[in-house]
Amino acid sequence: MNYPNGKKQDSSRSAMANTGKAFSNRGMSLEEDINITNSFYLDSAIAVIHKKPTPIQIVKVNYPKRSAAVITEGYFKQASTTDYNGVYRGKHIDFEAKETKNKTRFPLANIHDHQLNHMQAVVKHGGISFLLIRFAQFNETYFFPVEKLFPYWDDKLSGKRKSIPYQIIKNEGYVIPFHYQKRIDYLAIIDKLYF
Amino acid sequence: MNYPNGKKQDSSRSAMANTGKAFSNRGMSLEEDINITNSFYLDSAIAVIHKKPTPIQIVKVNYPKRSAAVITEGYFKQASTTDYNGVYRGKHIDFEAKETKNKTRFPLANIHDHQLNHMQAVVKHGGISFLLIRFAQFNETYFFPVEKLFPYWDDKLSGKRKSIPYQIIKNEGYVIPFHYQKRIDYLAIIDKLYF
Repeated sequence: MNYPNGKKQDSSRSAMANTGKAFSNRGMSLEEDINITNSFYLDSAIAVIHKKPTPIQIVKVNYPKRSAAVITEGYFKQASTTDYNGVYRGKHIDFEAKETKNKTRFPLANIHDHQLNHMQAVVKHGGISFLLIRFAQFNETYFFPVEKLFPYWDDKLSGKRKSIPYQIIKNEGYVIPFHYQKRIDYLAIIDKLYF
Repeated sequence: MNYPNGKKQDSSRSAMANTGKAFSNRGMSLEEDINITNSFYLDSAIAVIHKKPTPIQIVKVNYPKRSAAVITEGYFKQASTTDYNGVYRGKHIDFEAKETKNKTRFPLANIHDHQLNHMQAVVKHGGISFLLIRFAQFNETYFFPVEKLFPYWDDKLSGKRKSIPYQIIKNEGYVIPFHYQKRIDYLAIIDKLYF
């Protein structure tokens, strides 16, 4: 499958997941790790959290006789919300996952204005909203509550800065240890922070 | 825009919404009414509830130079969850909307097994899940809590029946009055039932 940014998914990485050789976290994308984690949560009746489908603007569809409708022209649309949401222990969960190859900072260009507005609204209405940020070079994934993002976002809007330093995320965020099944066990962090 | 069932959206109906002539509910689809209602909830800071994008299986994408990626082969996938979810007064909200032209019953074939499993799981984890059912011929829309759906679903699984009689939905469900802005004010029902 291809992605909007023109990158192809590395099929050798997906294959690794199936052979069970990916015992270390290295080599799988954050999205793949989150999907595996969410499947584990669902199958173990821990939580119901899904990735939303990619929004597509459908322009042309063909309806061949005796077979499925085929979309022959469509475009990727920018998401107006976050990618993941669901319910855990009665709470609404809503988050965005971002991976960076940067070693010193997390560029805020990774988050869109309307996504931040959405996360703010979710928190206002009593939901739990956060970022999962992976620094790919260090193979570290952090839980970063959206409330801690707001001051940096204000700095971005006022032109003061365009990123959050790695050290800030390390200090103010919560590193998520890697497990084999619960690869990115972000609910463990939620248990500590919100219950 | 075309839909998986091969129906084209009636553009004259969408146009009506913009001219403000659609003062009666008649003439707009349930989906359009829900979208308008959800926009009102969002703009009025009442709740954050969105329709999920239609899941698409992307097969081929072209990347023309200097212009946006074009999906040239894609297929509609069956949704594994419900169409709408979000957060209201701290509660996770999760529902499916279905319209029928039937005057005497709501056919359960409108709901897929995995959607019912999903709604069951949402309730188990403390979310609020329900159906919005419109009987188009009567122009009536009902809020039907998913807990009341379960016995009829069991009857369906055991081969006893394939639908819920209209009278049952009228008696056990909650009719949603039509308003101009909050066209389908389902949160008013939630206020009464869950708070």
